[in-house]
Amino acid sequence: MIDAIVCTIGDEILIGQVVDTNSAQLAQALEEAGIHVKRMISIGDDRQEIASVLQDALARHAIVITTGGLGPTKDDITKPVLGQISGSKGYVVHPGQLEMVHKILAKRGLDVLPSNLAQAQVPDRAEVIVNKLGTAPVMVFRNVQGGGTLYALPGVPHEAVGAIPDIMKDICSHQPTESILHRNIMVYGMAESALSERIAPWEDALPADMHLAYLPNPLTGIRLRLSVYGGNAEENRIRVEEQMTRLKSLLGPLVYADKDSDLETTVGELLVKGGKTLSAAESCTGGEIAHLITSVPGSSAYFLGSVTSYAVSVKEAVLGVPSSTIENFGVVSSEVAAAMAEGVRRVTGSDYAVSTTGLAGPSGDERNPVGTVWIGVAGPRGTRTVSYCYKNDRKRNIERFAASALNFLRLILQEEL
Amino acid sequence: MIDAIVCTIGDEILIGQVVDTNSAQLAQALEEAGIHVKRMISIGDDRQEIASVLQDALARHAIVITTGGLGPTKDDITKPVLGQISGSKGYVVHPGQLEMVHKILAKRGLDVLPSNLAQAQVPDRAEVIVNKLGTAPVMVFRNVQGGGTLYALPGVPHEAVGAIPDIMKDICSHQPTESILHRNIMVYGMAESALSERIAPWEDALPADMHLAYLPNPLTGIRLRLSVYGGNAEENRIRVEEQMTRLKSLLGPLVYADKDSDLETTVGELLVKGGKTLSAAESCTGGEIAHLITSVPGSSAYFLGSVTSYAVSVKEAVLGVPSSTIENFGVVSSEVAAAMAEGVRRVTGSDYAVSTTGLAGPSGDERNPVGTVWIGVAGPRGTRTVSYCYKNDRKRNIERFAASALNFLRLILQEEL
Repeated sequence: MIDAIVCTIGDEILIGQVVDTNSAQLAQALEEAGIHVKRMISIGDDRQEIASVLQDALARHAIVITTGGLGPTKDDITKPVLGQISGSKGYVVHPGQLEMVHKILAKRGLDVLPSNLAQAQVPDRAEVIVNKLGTAPVMVFRNVQGGGTLYALPGVPHEAVGAIPDIMKDICSHQPTESILHRNIMVYGMAESALSERIAPWEDALPADMHLAYLPNPLTGIRLRLSVYGGNAEENRIRVEEQMTRLKSLLGPLVYADKDSDLETTVGELLVKGGKTLSAAESCTGGEIAHLITSVPGSSAYFLGSVTSYAVSVKEAVLGVPSSTIENFGVVSSEVAAAMAEGVRRVTGSDYAVSTTGLAGPSGDERNPVGTVWIGVAGPRGTRTVSYCYKNDRKRNIERFAASALNFLRLILQEEL
Repeated sequence: MIDAIVCTIGDEILIGQVVDTNSAQLAQALEEAGIHVKRMISIGDDRQEIASVLQDALARHAIVITTGGLGPTKDDITKPVLGQISGSKGYVVHPGQLEMVHKILAKRGLDVLPSNLAQAQVPDRAEVIVNKLGTAPVMVFRNVQGGGTLYALPGVPHEAVGAIPDIMKDICSHQPTESILHRNIMVYGMAESALSERIAPWEDALPADMHLAYLPNPLTGIRLRLSVYGGNAEENRIRVEEQMTRLKSLLGPLVYADKDSDLETTVGELLVKGGKTLSAAESCTGGEIAHLITSVPGSSAYFLGSVTSYAVSVKEAVLGVPSSTIENFGVVSSEVAAAMAEGVRRVTGSDYAVSTTGLAGPSGDERNPVGTVWIGVAGPRGTRTVSYCYKNDRKRNIERFAASALNFLRLILQEEL
């Protein structure tokens, strides 16, 4: 198996102002291609440190990937260091990236400054993969000092993540990689430890060449990935499908997608299939549900809109929640969740509506602890509600509330459509 | 200046299953104490790798902090490796941690297994700081092989973070520490390269001991951080303040906060100061603005609610946008943005209202290209609109639209409140 080193460059990481998420994204992609990440290293914007860490890594490993240090400002010094260790004699302008710099700045309505143009200059030993999302190109230095190949990616997370497919393609076309088959399913509604316990007998009986990975995420639940390394691709496909059928029967309705997906995409697919529309009424989730639903391209085909009713006055005036319901049961209650869902369904004329009312924190109210949420779903066959209590901080509670609401809606749509 | 190395141990980091947040938390605490984190390293549960990385780090640096690898399961092998490199002859039971193991398991209603009891055993060269949040103690190995001091912390994030005050107290009582001063301001509305060009004369004239960093983020703009290392803390504070005053006068209204902050917090502070309330009407941003505003604790004091009017019918029925305005000017227009802001202000009774209507992508309409947004702000002194065009993917366009809307609102609130 081929080893790789992932290296993050930037003072902001070392003083703890920014959490490095690029390395995990790269590691996932490398792992899926059967490449083993041996170490992750974060270093500062320091010439000597960058040179010594990268030279050492390249001498010992086939692949070294860096992110960061490629911006147009003075503290970004990675490019000259790469020029030096790669034995480049000078800089050349890459016409493709230069065009992209002009395009990006024109689209943003900005003047092209000398520092922008310098972004398209690369050490003459670099091959360039044009970065379409930003001005700094992705640079590839092959067999540096007779050793490994270095990929230098920009540090801005969406640019780094955006470059992953291109560099993985390059890596796989230059390295002897093993055949690997990955098969994903998406699960929501059970903690990782409980899930692990439930499927332990199945997991323990897996053939030696199959490996199950748990990839948990607060917004999407747990992605279960079954992988086979090596062997015959077609045979593996059949063997993996057999195992997956067993796994899915153990998990039942916890499985919401038979592929890598997320709850908002699944909900959208169900609504499109059934030809139905959706609206939302949010209190504690404050727009997160609408944000997730509308992050799916094409969501305007089924999502009509939503009301974020943070104030009681908005619950009453816009959604028509009776003030007596709020007085009798409290804002965070099954009754108010139901009235909110029914209210936004009536106001928007949608087929289905989902609602949330709860306490994300930091403070609770006199009736409920922090982390309590009531979720409502109103539809042609009536209204249902459910309640959960999570023990996280505000940000994480909002995510859990929104995901749980989408999952409750998903279960009802699967039943009714 | 004293150097430290932060090392994360665990296979789950290297396959990208978990993002390492412990290192950033440790780095923040170390940085505040004037200790420079030289590298962060993540390695797997591999005996040789752990031993070689830690021995190398301890030979060269005063402080090495590890997190992870201390659990009760077979794959956690950090403790025996630490026993070996510290020259320990065997294990001793720490009575304080043993008591804690019994207490924690009793609280969780679990039986005490031999693997749990083993958690209170430490190599005989270790000093113990009792972990009150979990079963694995914090271990301190001083002057390992005549070199630095190693602190081994559990990997579970809340246990690692919980141990930080104790280890920082220990570090500061054993090491002479240096002063570091960081000063942040937040800027929105100018690209990094243009900003860099504008302040170049000022930046070039900075004293040699001062360092400026650019920390860009699509949702918050650019954080500018000025740092001074060493010297007299009080004098540095005055010198940095003088430089900051000059920088702020160069940037004018681009500066939205005189500290590390974000747009939604700044908008909230302005509303609280002025005693005013806010609502939002979102089309293309689909709930992102409401989500950002309500992510601020205490936002219920000023945010009344919002309407996400994805469908034209909702714009008309809920927000009262005249169908003639939509027909005459198109959905993505200054007129519709204004009518949406005025509509949601009327419906919720808020003092201010912000609105967005645009095309996040992937497809445009017959009048406007993808990436076009019209933003409206309605308030007691009337309604204003502004338009931008971004050329990113859907997700990024939504972020830019939302941040630009918050910034437009911020500028108007600063002027009027």
